[in-house]
Amino acid sequence: MKTVGIVVEYNPFHNGHLYHAQKAREAAGADVVMAVMSGHFLQRGEPALVNKWARTRMALQNGVDIVVELPYAFSVQKAEYFAKGAITILEKLFCDAFCFGSENGQVSSFIETKQQMDKHSKSLDPLVQKYMGEGFSFPKAQTLARESLFGQRLPLDLSKPNNILGFHYIQANENLPHPMTPLTVKRQQADYHDVTLSSQPIASATGIRKAIMETGLETIEPYVPAAAFAELNHYLSAYGHLHHWDLYWPLLQYRLLSSSTEELAQIYDVSEGIEYRLKEAARQSASFTEFMESVKTKRYTWTRIQRALVHILLHVSKEEMGAALEAVRYIRLLGMNSRGREYLNKVKKNLSLPFITKAAVFKEALALDLKAAEIYALGLPSHSSHSLLSSEFNEHPVILP
Amino acid sequence: MKTVGIVVEYNPFHNGHLYHAQKAREAAGADVVMAVMSGHFLQRGEPALVNKWARTRMALQNGVDIVVELPYAFSVQKAEYFAKGAITILEKLFCDAFCFGSENGQVSSFIETKQQMDKHSKSLDPLVQKYMGEGFSFPKAQTLARESLFGQRLPLDLSKPNNILGFHYIQANENLPHPMTPLTVKRQQADYHDVTLSSQPIASATGIRKAIMETGLETIEPYVPAAAFAELNHYLSAYGHLHHWDLYWPLLQYRLLSSSTEELAQIYDVSEGIEYRLKEAARQSASFTEFMESVKTKRYTWTRIQRALVHILLHVSKEEMGAALEAVRYIRLLGMNSRGREYLNKVKKNLSLPFITKAAVFKEALALDLKAAEIYALGLPSHSSHSLLSSEFNEHPVILP
Repeated sequence: MKTVGIVVEYNPFHNGHLYHAQKAREAAGADVVMAVMSGHFLQRGEPALVNKWARTRMALQNGVDIVVELPYAFSVQKAEYFAKGAITILEKLFCDAFCFGSENGQVSSFIETKQQMDKHSKSLDPLVQKYMGEGFSFPKAQTLARESLFGQRLPLDLSKPNNILGFHYIQANENLPHPMTPLTVKRQQADYHDVTLSSQPIASATGIRKAIMETGLETIEPYVPAAAFAELNHYLSAYGHLHHWDLYWPLLQYRLLSSSTEELAQIYDVSEGIEYRLKEAARQSASFTEFMESVKTKRYTWTRIQRALVHILLHVSKEEMGAALEAVRYIRLLGMNSRGREYLNKVKKNLSLPFITKAAVFKEALALDLKAAEIYALGLPSHSSHSLLSSEFNEHPVILP
Repeated sequence: MKTVGIVVEYNPFHNGHLYHAQKAREAAGADVVMAVMSGHFLQRGEPALVNKWARTRMALQNGVDIVVELPYAFSVQKAEYFAKGAITILEKLFCDAFCFGSENGQVSSFIETKQQMDKHSKSLDPLVQKYMGEGFSFPKAQTLARESLFGQRLPLDLSKPNNILGFHYIQANENLPHPMTPLTVKRQQADYHDVTLSSQPIASATGIRKAIMETGLETIEPYVPAAAFAELNHYLSAYGHLHHWDLYWPLLQYRLLSSSTEELAQIYDVSEGIEYRLKEAARQSASFTEFMESVKTKRYTWTRIQRALVHILLHVSKEEMGAALEAVRYIRLLGMNSRGREYLNKVKKNLSLPFITKAAVFKEALALDLKAAEIYALGLPSHSSHSLLSSEFNEHPVILP
């Protein structure tokens, strides 16, 4: 059975994702579409709107055959580590190809860009350092360094988040012992940063989230498949909320004010004295937005700060994360349909990593992911968090026909 | 100016407290009544209904001339340390006498009990150990040991909380270089553990708190002085809540679930593996009451567990507490009237400890108390906690005419 892998967050699943899954299957001529998906906290340093089980159901109802989890250690991460974790998992599960969305739909442009960058890496790194020394954020310093070295000669605009992810997928794949076939599909209409909904049936996830927060779920019905829309509504009525940072603000503020700056400095991604800023801002701010406004600086992107805040909220130390990042050590199944099951039954015996279907048996290996699930639940009011907490630990993979 | 000291929590200030302050002044023939009062968290391991500033105003409006703070390190403590901290502070402020409430009103019974206990301390301690080895809580083991050693011959029933406190006041006083004159007033009507309100104008603080929680503030009007009643109502309308453990449950649950058992074991008063019980119960419980019900054992009193929970909530380590408990290192003024001010002006130059009126100047010394104030504020919803947080740090002592 030919298999294509995709890397997803589905926050929430929308028509563009449906298109991506279909096109990936076509492009690879695949029997099976396998998604590796972030768990409860996402690459941009945010809680997912709905939990990973609900997002797995959305995926399985819309063209995906298998969903496995990208562990916390790789999901709440900069593009490089995020890509490395995801691509490694797809290859460990014997995908023949992987397929990502891009602005131009040309996989060759990614490969050429990577070759040029490799060739000039010795000149590039010192330039990045120089711009960071001038106080620019890491991504901004990279962009400036590339511009001064290559001018307009790179085939890809690497200041676009989706291009950066694609670039790192390609890079991670090339570093594998048995690289998969890289494929890309051209994204439809919506730009990554688009925040307004158009009359087109495809909108960006950012725009969809914004619409949900500002005008409620109904607004987004045209932009998501019916089953995903039903799933979102079901979650909202079951738990009373979709998850967002504001729900976690009391816990984050409490954690910041009850920890010493020395303790905060031990948390992953907390560096260069930002712990002092964070603590002082927590004292002064009445909401998450107010807090972020007072914390942000030219030196750090919003996303970079949010990721550090997730690690603080989950109390994940540099040491713990360092160990978890060394290698992908397990694969956790979140869900599958009958085609996915058929495939997994075939390849299971050849897997080099533990394949987890029952969390209770792998408590220790899953420590970070289980903690993420528990803290994710605590954002809800007590009665809802209680039912979410008790369900999480014994949750079985979603199985659809 | 002759001065009498009293040790108080005023949670809330009621008619029995007014009686105690008046009788203490009479018994000592004192010009000045000085109260040393627990801050935001109390000896029984609970948040105070209203903050220390509101409770200071209640005291100054009802027969107390000076209120100083019993530091967190001594207030959320078993009777022995609580008494030691409080009595030390009164003596450092040159009180001539101190006066506490007791069931029998005989200070001699406390002194005689202490003498007998001292005489038999070598036989007593091993007996206490023996009963603890059988799984009894520390207070219960003490009671059983005393019973088997003295039968009914001790003049005091030390199983009553107020007698235990009195006993430790006497003990702490005798250990001072210059002991004060010990005095006691007989408590009126209400027993420490009374939980029902009677038709008498004096009720126990426990009964008053229960009535507030169950039927609202109005019920308690007959049992508290008018100014104290007004203060409670004012606090409730300003902040929307009186403080109680339920408000802190989400934060406590979050702290327990986001900390490892190794980290919890470093917290003061967490011992003998109770951290495993606490973490598991946090996972299973939907409210503070449910949590306490599932945590309690024969081995630990409710109060003992609650104190450990306050230390967990405030993230106070064994190391930090050990250092803070070594000695009283500062005295913080919470409020005074003109008589109190006259007295303090006279004695201030002879004080052997820093006398703090502005917290901002003594941030480091006050670290634990300031943390307690911040976490205390976080129990309230965001908008209220914000105003409480920002006020706390720059709060000046209450000054009444």
